[in-house]
Amino acid sequence: METKKDETKQENDAQKNQEQNKEEHKGKHKEKKNKKNKEEKGGPKGDLKAKVKVVKGARDFLPFQMAIRDKAFKIITDVFKKHGAVEIDTPVFELKETLMGKYGEDSKLIYDLNDQGGELLSLRYDLTVPFARFMAVNNLPSIKRYHIGKVYRRDNPQMARGRYREFYQCDFDIAGPNYGKMIPEADVIKVVVEILTQLPVGGFNIKLNHRLLLDAIVNLSGIKDELYKTVCSSVDKLDKEEWATVKKELIEKGITEEQSDKLWSFVQLKDKPKVLLEKLKANNELQSNQKGKTALEEMGILFDYLEILGTDKYCTFDLSLARGLDYYTGLIYETVLTDTDKVGSISGGGRYDNLVGMFSGKQIPAVGVSIGIERIFNILEEKYKDSPDIRSVETEVFVAVIGKNLTKERFKVLTDLWDHGIKAEILYNENPRMDKQMDYTVNNKIPFMVFIGENELKENKLKIKCMANGNEIMVEREKLVEEINKLKEKPELLKVEGKK
Amino acid sequence: METKKDETKQENDAQKNQEQNKEEHKGKHKEKKNKKNKEEKGGPKGDLKAKVKVVKGARDFLPFQMAIRDKAFKIITDVFKKHGAVEIDTPVFELKETLMGKYGEDSKLIYDLNDQGGELLSLRYDLTVPFARFMAVNNLPSIKRYHIGKVYRRDNPQMARGRYREFYQCDFDIAGPNYGKMIPEADVIKVVVEILTQLPVGGFNIKLNHRLLLDAIVNLSGIKDELYKTVCSSVDKLDKEEWATVKKELIEKGITEEQSDKLWSFVQLKDKPKVLLEKLKANNELQSNQKGKTALEEMGILFDYLEILGTDKYCTFDLSLARGLDYYTGLIYETVLTDTDKVGSISGGGRYDNLVGMFSGKQIPAVGVSIGIERIFNILEEKYKDSPDIRSVETEVFVAVIGKNLTKERFKVLTDLWDHGIKAEILYNENPRMDKQMDYTVNNKIPFMVFIGENELKENKLKIKCMANGNEIMVEREKLVEEINKLKEKPELLKVEGKK
Repeated sequence: METKKDETKQENDAQKNQEQNKEEHKGKHKEKKNKKNKEEKGGPKGDLKAKVKVVKGARDFLPFQMAIRDKAFKIITDVFKKHGAVEIDTPVFELKETLMGKYGEDSKLIYDLNDQGGELLSLRYDLTVPFARFMAVNNLPSIKRYHIGKVYRRDNPQMARGRYREFYQCDFDIAGPNYGKMIPEADVIKVVVEILTQLPVGGFNIKLNHRLLLDAIVNLSGIKDELYKTVCSSVDKLDKEEWATVKKELIEKGITEEQSDKLWSFVQLKDKPKVLLEKLKANNELQSNQKGKTALEEMGILFDYLEILGTDKYCTFDLSLARGLDYYTGLIYETVLTDTDKVGSISGGGRYDNLVGMFSGKQIPAVGVSIGIERIFNILEEKYKDSPDIRSVETEVFVAVIGKNLTKERFKVLTDLWDHGIKAEILYNENPRMDKQMDYTVNNKIPFMVFIGENELKENKLKIKCMANGNEIMVEREKLVEEINKLKEKPELLKVEGKK
Repeated sequence: METKKDETKQENDAQKNQEQNKEEHKGKHKEKKNKKNKEEKGGPKGDLKAKVKVVKGARDFLPFQMAIRDKAFKIITDVFKKHGAVEIDTPVFELKETLMGKYGEDSKLIYDLNDQGGELLSLRYDLTVPFARFMAVNNLPSIKRYHIGKVYRRDNPQMARGRYREFYQCDFDIAGPNYGKMIPEADVIKVVVEILTQLPVGGFNIKLNHRLLLDAIVNLSGIKDELYKTVCSSVDKLDKEEWATVKKELIEKGITEEQSDKLWSFVQLKDKPKVLLEKLKANNELQSNQKGKTALEEMGILFDYLEILGTDKYCTFDLSLARGLDYYTGLIYETVLTDTDKVGSISGGGRYDNLVGMFSGKQIPAVGVSIGIERIFNILEEKYKDSPDIRSVETEVFVAVIGKNLTKERFKVLTDLWDHGIKAEILYNENPRMDKQMDYTVNNKIPFMVFIGENELKENKLKIKCMANGNEIMVEREKLVEEINKLKEKPELLKVEGKK
């Protein structure tokens, strides 16, 4: 095996390769034409070479990135489990018609499979619609579940910002009938807060709003119900665009000057939850609108719970939050990171009481959240790139050899270690050089080396070296496992700085 | 939330549903026609109902099944890590041309994506070809990696036998130049033995053979090289078919009576590794064939290592093992379970020295194994279905309420527990009934209950109940976390039998 130094260099090369991947194909619509051109021009051999690549918008995970990913997933699943959730999984594909009509305009981003005979399939676009289908097919009336899986969108990839065509979602949902108002919602928001305070992503802000409040606002602004969706899609841009720009868009959509001004008088409002709530409760117009009144009552119940749970300080009541999907029926929320402007929203969700019923015929109310982990991976990779805490391998003992043709002796020692549960490895060369063996150990932050040499063999002994402090210990061959287990109990010996 | 009893019933329903799924569509080729018929006949509403289903050949994982899956994956990854492997991941799809020409006749089983503009994609058929592509794109000269991921084959599903269209593979591969003969191979076989002795699957047998030995045998039988592939594919059936049947097939393929008899004189041989090796070494024909001689030398080296590693007793040297894939170049192996006839091979692999080079131009020798875990899931599900060791939730404390409108008090207790890392939950109803709370706790094998009631609140106390022995303890409100942590240290309190 090559030394780890080489591997580190190669990972850097690989990283560069990924960067290049990020840069390519900025023009989405030109792609097909370009491809045709290539096929016409390139000889078969040149073509072959050019086509060895990762699919556009997707990524390989290198060992260091996998170690980061595992660390992040562990934090997330531990929180899900702390709140009593079970785990489920669904296939990567669903019947095309299961997904159809659930994502509005974004349906064009769904990957379809070729019709090769049999069912017409599509890759899942999120984990929420498959979850609703899962509840119906398996005939479950209630569940609190999490699901971590890849989803697929034929969107324009922006990999530096963590936007991929294949990406992970980590979903936590609570579904079931007759639950107390805002009780599951409060739990879901606690889950988000626990995860984001444990992941080292810096500050964050959870924006809260209510679907019925949006309904009331649109209504009070004198805008027709059928324009609700398109108005919300414009309002939702207020986190990136000036009001003037959004207003212009609204007027182009047929909203009058007066209506849009009235709308603005509401959607510009955002504040600490209870502060804004008090203000809105004093608004007679909202109080006289049935949906508005209901929404404010529910928000009041929620905000009391948030205070008790210690999550209110992470939240903002923000009337401009609209979210794209149509299936929300109650509370909605979205989380943005406040210490970085590189990433947009990293989590979102809300209450959707009718989605499961679209499949089963039985209404099963549900509320959930989805955490978009790719953007968090990017932040973590940057953070941990020189950290001794992240190891791609977990090897505890490197078995080194001094002298030639001692592979059988190496396997004897390995067997002893492996059969006693100790993580151990060798270089696979017949006669590995000492510098290569040493480099591999150091670069992989392996805490212990065991040396096999002619002299040691004659005396039936082995030499152990502790990489943390350089100490060397000679042990009887039979005492190796015992000694290693003793050394493993000393935490100061287990953390080794790898060479840079 | 419904009681767990209900949930168990529902899981049973769900299981039945899956069974039905297994039964449907036995006739693969009729499927398209049937579908057309349905579309013509069924009204839109009836159709909608009929189409809410899991995609053919795929499966949902229910919480109990996920708990089993996690248990199996943990055993497998722990062994991979014990041998020093890093983890990688690749996208679920590759360029169609990356997969083309790698799987021989089975290429027709590849799922293609629709041409929606842009690159032409296919779902991965295994993890080996994507691994070779990964090595090339990321420019890595060596690696010891594992990869657990779903792969896709448009095969005829036989779900009762663990054969799905979407299924997991757990791959462990060692790639790199200049490694000592049979050293990585010996490591790979040790990995398989460790995994299968730790998974409770009963006895198993690892069949070993060598590609060069097969070459030699075909050659010595006087069969032309161009018939090698088709001869091997017939020979490979000898684990299920009688020789007479295979012989008939061979003769239909143009092999003479004499050739096939000669072939049979070799491929019928199987024995303990060193026993058969000694026999073959005494065979002058084989020894005079260059490929045969090399293969026997290599097998000799390997068998010495297997003895040292304690794995030889799980192996059989079996000249009828041929394996389908064309890319193998050296040792090949396949594992069958010996205590069940329900499943076929559950792991297979071998040396493939030229596959990476097909992508990178640089030859990077490699050897690896793939473990087909779905068949193992089926066995484990059966085994653990009534076991108290498998829990779908990890909740430690159920927070119960006696009396009405005490949700805020419940959230105070939950916050205290959660913020101190204790896994806790409640029922989401505003005023849950005591029997429902009790059922949920018992059926989910939750070890502790905390009771909140008017009386307890007045005295600023809480009652803890240990479900393992029924003991009840009154504690000061402030001492709850401390007390729970003390109780958690007693293992006898943590294992609770759930109600059947």
